[in-house]
Amino acid sequence: MSKQRVLTGITTTGTPHLGNYVGAIRPAIEASQNSDIDSFFFLADYHALIKCQDPKLVHQSTMEIAATWLALGLDTDNTMFYRQSDIREIPELTWMLNCVCGKGLMNRAHAYKGAVDANTANGEDADKAITMGLFNYPILMAADIVMFGAHKVPVGKDQIQHVEMARDIAQRFNHIYASKKQPILTLPEYEVGDDVAILQGLDGRKMSKSYGNTIPLFLTEKQLQKHINKIQTNLLEPGEAKDPDGSTVFQIWQAFANKEQVAEMRQAFAEGIGWGDAKKRLFALINEEIGEARERYNDLLTRPQDIEAELQKGAAKARIQSQRMMDTVRQAVGIYGLK
Amino acid sequence: MSKQRVLTGITTTGTPHLGNYVGAIRPAIEASQNSDIDSFFFLADYHALIKCQDPKLVHQSTMEIAATWLALGLDTDNTMFYRQSDIREIPELTWMLNCVCGKGLMNRAHAYKGAVDANTANGEDADKAITMGLFNYPILMAADIVMFGAHKVPVGKDQIQHVEMARDIAQRFNHIYASKKQPILTLPEYEVGDDVAILQGLDGRKMSKSYGNTIPLFLTEKQLQKHINKIQTNLLEPGEAKDPDGSTVFQIWQAFANKEQVAEMRQAFAEGIGWGDAKKRLFALINEEIGEARERYNDLLTRPQDIEAELQKGAAKARIQSQRMMDTVRQAVGIYGLK
Repeated sequence: MSKQRVLTGITTTGTPHLGNYVGAIRPAIEASQNSDIDSFFFLADYHALIKCQDPKLVHQSTMEIAATWLALGLDTDNTMFYRQSDIREIPELTWMLNCVCGKGLMNRAHAYKGAVDANTANGEDADKAITMGLFNYPILMAADIVMFGAHKVPVGKDQIQHVEMARDIAQRFNHIYASKKQPILTLPEYEVGDDVAILQGLDGRKMSKSYGNTIPLFLTEKQLQKHINKIQTNLLEPGEAKDPDGSTVFQIWQAFANKEQVAEMRQAFAEGIGWGDAKKRLFALINEEIGEARERYNDLLTRPQDIEAELQKGAAKARIQSQRMMDTVRQAVGIYGLK
Repeated sequence: MSKQRVLTGITTTGTPHLGNYVGAIRPAIEASQNSDIDSFFFLADYHALIKCQDPKLVHQSTMEIAATWLALGLDTDNTMFYRQSDIREIPELTWMLNCVCGKGLMNRAHAYKGAVDANTANGEDADKAITMGLFNYPILMAADIVMFGAHKVPVGKDQIQHVEMARDIAQRFNHIYASKKQPILTLPEYEVGDDVAILQGLDGRKMSKSYGNTIPLFLTEKQLQKHINKIQTNLLEPGEAKDPDGSTVFQIWQAFANKEQVAEMRQAFAEGIGWGDAKKRLFALINEEIGEARERYNDLLTRPQDIEAELQKGAAKARIQSQRMMDTVRQAVGIYGLK
């Protein structure tokens, strides 16, 4: 039996923050070191076009996110790391899937329905400002997944439905075009990440760009310390014992500390460590974990050709598989030239 | 200024009949001999998947339609003749256009609305059995058209709206991604064919597959005579004068005859030619025009590799243009690797 294939799409908009790092990037890179797993990571730049119509931003963001993952030590020899738009078979497979996907299924997609609800709540036309990109997004995502025969797709809760849709569409394709004994497309399953890995933001809520409470991942040391200083705390003075379990400083500390360090900080809280001190130690801890990666990141961004070379290496590997898959799919649907 | 570019999509389902030949194929081939025009003809096999989920039929039909156009003398050196699915840039451009196309526009597409109306008339869910292929079809068609910078798209009346949609989508793309002075996509215009060129079928209505009244183009001589014998006529006997202008036999005769032959037949009608005789002469006339092509057609179908070679020649020429267009489009939207 072939290895378990795990596929992760990486949105190429916005700047990664510590929450992304702890909740998604670090565990994904760790998981990719498991030799029982074939890991696929792709920069979802076709998807980015749905949200972002600023070409400079789309391009720059793709390069920065690639640099982030590379700087953090993603092993591109033992994983597939590619830019979605380098796999030209993906939009073609999207078309094939379009032709077996019921429109009713797309009508029920959460992201689309959410946009419709917002419009109707405002007394607007239901589909106002909704593009076909947004409406078709789950089909593109299905193509991303089934192209590489992914078994598992780690997602946030809001993305569960999309993996289920990919599964439905793949099933329908197999039903029409494949024999029961030899399905063409692998039916993917979602895998919802651990809640423990959700980092708190500056205000104690989940760290999220939409709350404006993030600590960006690759700040300068000075900026990083500044951001950490802004973490909300209570008014207890140095010397007064503090409850670690209600503290954002402690919650973030836990995400970076080893067991001993967690125990030490718990002790320090009990002994009344001042917030200023605790934040200095938090800065030092985070900086120790990401400091070298930050240097690599900044260095990589001065050498975009090297980022590109990594992406091209990944694309070349991925295309061997996507071309094979599309040969099979084209034969199945009756679209092919004679050899 | 560059030459006028005229693009024609050829549906790759069904068997071409005399109506297709007179109304579409023959004028298109003639027009392509005009050296002021750059003609693009493509076999729309991605589109075929919307209607046909039988892979053998999709493939066989593509080869037969290609053989038909080649046998009828399409000059593939001086035109672009390609299979849509050989231009892998088309589905990619489709995705880019998705992201600038409002869903409201697609809601208004006739083909989609027709299917919805039929469902609601039957008390069914509005979107029952409607695929995303059908819903997205006008965007794929827009990509077909703008990929090659077509100025004119000759269509039947039912397709006017789709060309207008392609124009709308292209305009929107230019608005977002191009400067006013240098638009990226050419806005196409439709061109509705001449009504004179509509051939009557066996029962006197428009010759159409949906009426079941067609005379297939490449029948054997025997079958062709048999079909012609089935053309409905009145009960006038030989020797009785007949009105040519109410006669399907005469209408079809006109589509194949030169001026003298039309005048001769008009005279023969006045002189009371028998229907049997008139039909024999009609057979001879049609057979003279298409007999050699029929032989080439049958011969070509025994040499599918030669059909394929023509398609590959066309694809190679077309891809030079589609790749150049996609390079421009990718740069415009911000999706590209470093050179």
